[in-house]
Amino acid sequence: MITKALVFDVFGTLVDWRTSIARESEALLSPLGASVDWLEFADAWRNQYQPALEEVRSGRIPFSKLDVLHRRNLDVILSEFAIDHVDEATRQNLNFAWHRLDAWPDVRPGLQALRSRYLLAPCSNGNISLMVDLARRDGFLWDAILGAEVARDYKPKPIVYLSAAAAFDLEPGQTMMVAAHSSDLAAAAAAGLRTAFVARPDENGPGRGEVAPSVAVDISVSSILELSRII
Amino acid sequence: MITKALVFDVFGTLVDWRTSIARESEALLSPLGASVDWLEFADAWRNQYQPALEEVRSGRIPFSKLDVLHRRNLDVILSEFAIDHVDEATRQNLNFAWHRLDAWPDVRPGLQALRSRYLLAPCSNGNISLMVDLARRDGFLWDAILGAEVARDYKPKPIVYLSAAAAFDLEPGQTMMVAAHSSDLAAAAAAGLRTAFVARPDENGPGRGEVAPSVAVDISVSSILELSRII
Repeated sequence: MITKALVFDVFGTLVDWRTSIARESEALLSPLGASVDWLEFADAWRNQYQPALEEVRSGRIPFSKLDVLHRRNLDVILSEFAIDHVDEATRQNLNFAWHRLDAWPDVRPGLQALRSRYLLAPCSNGNISLMVDLARRDGFLWDAILGAEVARDYKPKPIVYLSAAAAFDLEPGQTMMVAAHSSDLAAAAAAGLRTAFVARPDENGPGRGEVAPSVAVDISVSSILELSRII
Repeated sequence: MITKALVFDVFGTLVDWRTSIARESEALLSPLGASVDWLEFADAWRNQYQPALEEVRSGRIPFSKLDVLHRRNLDVILSEFAIDHVDEATRQNLNFAWHRLDAWPDVRPGLQALRSRYLLAPCSNGNISLMVDLARRDGFLWDAILGAEVARDYKPKPIVYLSAAAAFDLEPGQTMMVAAHSSDLAAAAAAGLRTAFVARPDENGPGRGEVAPSVAVDISVSSILELSRII
């Protein structure tokens, strides 16, 4: 079956959330007198991510878009880091730091090269407006914004991958999931999608990202640009 | 309230469905021996559109994407025009004629000019894959594909307009609906959106489109290019 569309994980795979969140947090909170390790702050905020998604996936809370979950997690983390007296406007602005993440440098040219041969969409847990803002900031040209908000559930639930393929009128086997995380690719493969692993060895700090997939994948590359050259 | 996003009706407003459907129908059916007035055939197919949407809006049938409704209507129309012996592959191909509609000539440059200042998305009753194919064919650059398939209901139900604004994290009043049909704009305005009317006097044949809005609108123009010059 010929691959007709590529759908992409975004956080970690296309954008460097860690240094971007550290930069944005420092810029907004250090003027208020906060002085912490901003990379640790970013890691702590991100560590609240999967537990929050699990609340939705398990059905304990109704679907809420990621901006809402990020905001709830931010309030927890500010308190944990004893950064108090942060006004509401600053909290809202900081929460939108997730809309201001920088892409890894290979992504823009890689997507541009892939666009002439494939339909392209994010298949992310991020909400539509977050994906729209990243696309404008980082120069991604998408055919559609797919993923959690369209499926109204979170990866790795199969419905998220299946609804992305279905939105393009494609069979799962005509759709390839591209991600830097083996767990995401294992779930996509179980739903019938083809899979491409992209190594992001520094995603969680130097040497603290996946360098190779721990599950069977169809393709393994070190960048989106490399992916564009071999498929 | 400042307008931050423009959302567009597509059939009739951005693309000339009538001559495109006539052309595609003739190309696929005349080799099978059919000889009818192809513009009448296009009109007849389109006339089945609102009754089919009403089945969904009323709740008589569950949400089905427009490709599915178009196909059901096509089978009815082929029978009405006594065009029999059309094989399944041709029916499927002809149904996808709705993915191969030509844009009015002002649309591509108009959207290009608007893109630097506004978020842009279709807010159409067409499904995501249909919108994706039209965008690729006609050179539209969208920030997201919004509308019926995301809202899982059909215009003019308020949820379709409201979910388009919400997907962009905007208030209805920060979002402007652009359409060639007064009924669409009346419904958008009732949901709180701003409205722009675009005259398409030849949509349903020469002189058989709306030349002026029959309801109050915020802006009335004769093309998307003119819209880009005045907002």
